[in-house]
Amino acid sequence: MLNEMGQRAKAAARILSRVSSEQKNRLLTDLADLLWVERSFILGNNQKDVEEAHQEGLSEALIDRLTLNADRLMGVAQDLRAVATLPDPIGEVIEAQQLDNGLRILRQRVPLGVLGVIYESRPNVTIDIAGLALKSGNAVILRGGSETLHSNRALVTCIHRVLEANGLPADAVQFIDSPDRSLVHELLLLSDYIDMIIPRGGARLHEFCREHSRIPVMTGGIGICHLYVDETANLEKSIPVIQNAKVQRPSVCNALDTLLVHEKVAPQLLPKLVQQLTTDGVRFRVHENAFSLLENIQGENIQLAGPGDFDQEWLALVLGVRVVESLEEAIEFIQMHSTGHSDGILTENPEHAQKFLSEVDSAAVYVNASTRFTDGGQLGLGAEVAVSTQRLHARGPMGLKELTTYKWIIQGQYHVRP
Amino acid sequence: MLNEMGQRAKAAARILSRVSSEQKNRLLTDLADLLWVERSFILGNNQKDVEEAHQEGLSEALIDRLTLNADRLMGVAQDLRAVATLPDPIGEVIEAQQLDNGLRILRQRVPLGVLGVIYESRPNVTIDIAGLALKSGNAVILRGGSETLHSNRALVTCIHRVLEANGLPADAVQFIDSPDRSLVHELLLLSDYIDMIIPRGGARLHEFCREHSRIPVMTGGIGICHLYVDETANLEKSIPVIQNAKVQRPSVCNALDTLLVHEKVAPQLLPKLVQQLTTDGVRFRVHENAFSLLENIQGENIQLAGPGDFDQEWLALVLGVRVVESLEEAIEFIQMHSTGHSDGILTENPEHAQKFLSEVDSAAVYVNASTRFTDGGQLGLGAEVAVSTQRLHARGPMGLKELTTYKWIIQGQYHVRP
Repeated sequence: MLNEMGQRAKAAARILSRVSSEQKNRLLTDLADLLWVERSFILGNNQKDVEEAHQEGLSEALIDRLTLNADRLMGVAQDLRAVATLPDPIGEVIEAQQLDNGLRILRQRVPLGVLGVIYESRPNVTIDIAGLALKSGNAVILRGGSETLHSNRALVTCIHRVLEANGLPADAVQFIDSPDRSLVHELLLLSDYIDMIIPRGGARLHEFCREHSRIPVMTGGIGICHLYVDETANLEKSIPVIQNAKVQRPSVCNALDTLLVHEKVAPQLLPKLVQQLTTDGVRFRVHENAFSLLENIQGENIQLAGPGDFDQEWLALVLGVRVVESLEEAIEFIQMHSTGHSDGILTENPEHAQKFLSEVDSAAVYVNASTRFTDGGQLGLGAEVAVSTQRLHARGPMGLKELTTYKWIIQGQYHVRP
Repeated sequence: MLNEMGQRAKAAARILSRVSSEQKNRLLTDLADLLWVERSFILGNNQKDVEEAHQEGLSEALIDRLTLNADRLMGVAQDLRAVATLPDPIGEVIEAQQLDNGLRILRQRVPLGVLGVIYESRPNVTIDIAGLALKSGNAVILRGGSETLHSNRALVTCIHRVLEANGLPADAVQFIDSPDRSLVHELLLLSDYIDMIIPRGGARLHEFCREHSRIPVMTGGIGICHLYVDETANLEKSIPVIQNAKVQRPSVCNALDTLLVHEKVAPQLLPKLVQQLTTDGVRFRVHENAFSLLENIQGENIQLAGPGDFDQEWLALVLGVRVVESLEEAIEFIQMHSTGHSDGILTENPEHAQKFLSEVDSAAVYVNASTRFTDGGQLGLGAEVAVSTQRLHARGPMGLKELTTYKWIIQGQYHVRP
C-alpha cells in the first residue's frame, strides 16, 4: 500500500516542481480560508481525539498538546498566510559562471521531491508541514500520531479539497490513515520514492529512523543546551537571560538544561539566581562544587546532581548547575555533554566570546542571548520544518530553502571534453 | 578497534577545524613533495600489490587501475598542489543579517567533522581524499580496497609523516589496515564519531552502505546517462558530442549509455553515427524502432536491444539507441530510465532546450555538450570527492564546499525571547 502512495507522491512531485509561485501562494491562502470556514468540522473531529485521549488516560499535558480550538486554528491559518508571503526558493540561481571554454554553468534550486514526515500528537504540524512542503514544490507523505487520527483526517480532507480546486493533484499531500506502527518501518524503506525523512518527535523516534531508514533522515530536535556565565558577564543582565532560556517554555528542545558558571562569579550569581528561579518553580540539580554556595537557601527544589544529570534533556523546569574554573573548562564540558543544538556564553569580553564561538561546535552558538532563539521564525527564516542537529544538508532551523536541492545546468555549443 | 579510531578521529577533527588556510596549504604541498621524494618506497609497495594481483588472476583492466608509476604519482602530487591553491571554504560567512530586535545572526561555514570513505582499487584516491579532507578541515577514516593494501599503507605513512612534521595529529587521516570485510559494516555503525560516509565504488557498495549505515551516506557515481538528439539539432556537430560522451572514457559514470533520436532526424543521423562509432569499437543495442534504419550497415556490433538494456550502466563501449516521436517522449523516457546523474539535449531550439532543462530532473542537465563534463574539475570546483546522485546535502560533483556544514552564530545584548 505504501509503495503505491510513494509512486503517486513521486508523480505529484513532478507536477508540483513546476507550479508558479503565484499558484502556490494562492493554494496556501485558500487553505487558510478553508480551515476557518470548516472550523466546526475540524474542531469536531479534534474533539473526538480529545475524548479518546481522556478515555485512554493520556496525561493532561499530552491532551493539551493535541487539542485544537478556534484560537489555535486561527494561528495555524495565519502561519499559512505568513508562509505564502515568504520568497519562493524554487528557481533561484545559486551560482552562475561561464568557463574559459565557453560552457555556461549554473546551479539552480529545485525541490527535494518527496518528503516523508513522521510526527507525534500536535495536529497543527499537519498543516505546517503541508504548507512548507507545497510552497517549496515538494510532495509529502504524512504519518501523524495515532492520538490525532480524527483531526488529521479532517485537516487532510481540507488540504485535498484545496489542491483539487486549484487543479493540482491531491496526491501532493498524502496521509497514512492508520495507527499501525509497522507502517512507519515500511515508510522508511521507500527509498525509490521518498527523498528525505523528517522525524519530529522524541529521541526514540529519531533513533528508530536512523536505524531502519534507507532514506536520508534529518535528525534533530534533541537539545541538551548550555549557557556559560563568564567571569566578565554582567550578572544583573544575565539573570533574565538564564530565566528566559529555562522558564519561558521548558518543554521544547531549545530550552536551557545546564548552567555553567565561572568560579569567580558563582558566589555572587548563584544564590540570587536560584532564589529568583525558585519562584518560577524551577528545581535544581547542583554539582557538589556549587552546592555549598547555596547553603543559606536550601530548599526541597535544590538537590545534589546525580550521575547522568548533565547528560539529560530536561524538557521540564529542571536546571543542572555547575561551577567551572575557566572558559576552557566550560568549552570542554559543553563539547562533552552538548547534543550540538544550542549553547551560549554570557560575557563582556570579546575575546572570550570569539573563542567560545569558534570552539563550541553546535548548530547554534550564542553570545549574550537566550538559547530560545533557535527557531526558524526567530532567526528570520519565516517558518521551520524542524531543527537539525545533524551536520549534513542543513543544520539548525530548517526553513523553505532547506527543503530544496539544486541541479547543475550546463549549456554549450556542442562542447566535447578534451 | 574501529570505535577507538572514531574517537581519535573526532579529537583530531576538533584540532583540524581551527587550522589556518596557510598551514593547511603548506601541509598539502609538503605532502606533494614527500610523495615524490619517497617515490621508490611508494612504487615498490605498489609493485607488491601488482604482483599479488597477478597471482590472484585479477583482470588486466583492474591491474591497470591499481598500478602506480612515476607519471601517475607525479599527477597525484600535482593534484594536491592544485587543491592547495583553491580557496579555503572554512570560515566563509554564508549569510549575515541583523534583525529588528538587534540580534546579529550569521551562518558560518565549518568542517563536517569526520568523513568515512570506502573505496576500491585505485590508490590515488587515498591521496586525493586525504588532500580534500584536510583542506576542508575534516578528519577522515579511509577504507581502501584489499588489492591495494601495500600501496595505501605506504601512502598513509607519508601522510602521517607530513601531518606530524606540521605539528598536527596523525589521527587526522586514519587507515583501516586490514582486508577484513566485516570492518566496513562496523565502520557504518560509528554514528557517534563519523559524520558522513562516502562510498566510491559500484552499485553494490552503495546499496550495502545505504542498507547498513547509521551515518548519512552520500550515494552516487552510478550514471545511466542519456543524450537526446532533437529534430532541430545540428547533426554534423552532434556526432562528435555523442562520440565524446560514449568513447572518450567509457568506464566512468558520466559516459553516455543511451542515445535517443527524434524520428525526423534518425534516418539521416543514425547510419552515419553508427558507422563512425563502429570504428571506435562501439557495440550497439538498438531498439527495434531504429533497427531498420541500420539495415544497410548490419554488422556483428549491431544488436537488437533486449529487455533491460535501457536500464543498464554500460561502463564499456556499448550504446543503447532508440528513436522517439517527440521531445515529450524523450523526457518521459529519461525520467523513467535515468539514474539522475547526467542527461542532455542536442538542439537548436531554445524552447526545447528550456523545456528539457526544466523537466529533466538529473544532477546535471546539458544543452549541446557532452555528458563527460560532470566532474568537479571540469565544472570549476577544482577537484571532486565524489559525484552525488542523491538529493540531500550535495548534488552532482562534490568539491571542498560540499565537505562542509555551517553553524549559526547569534550575538545579542542579553536578548531574551518575548
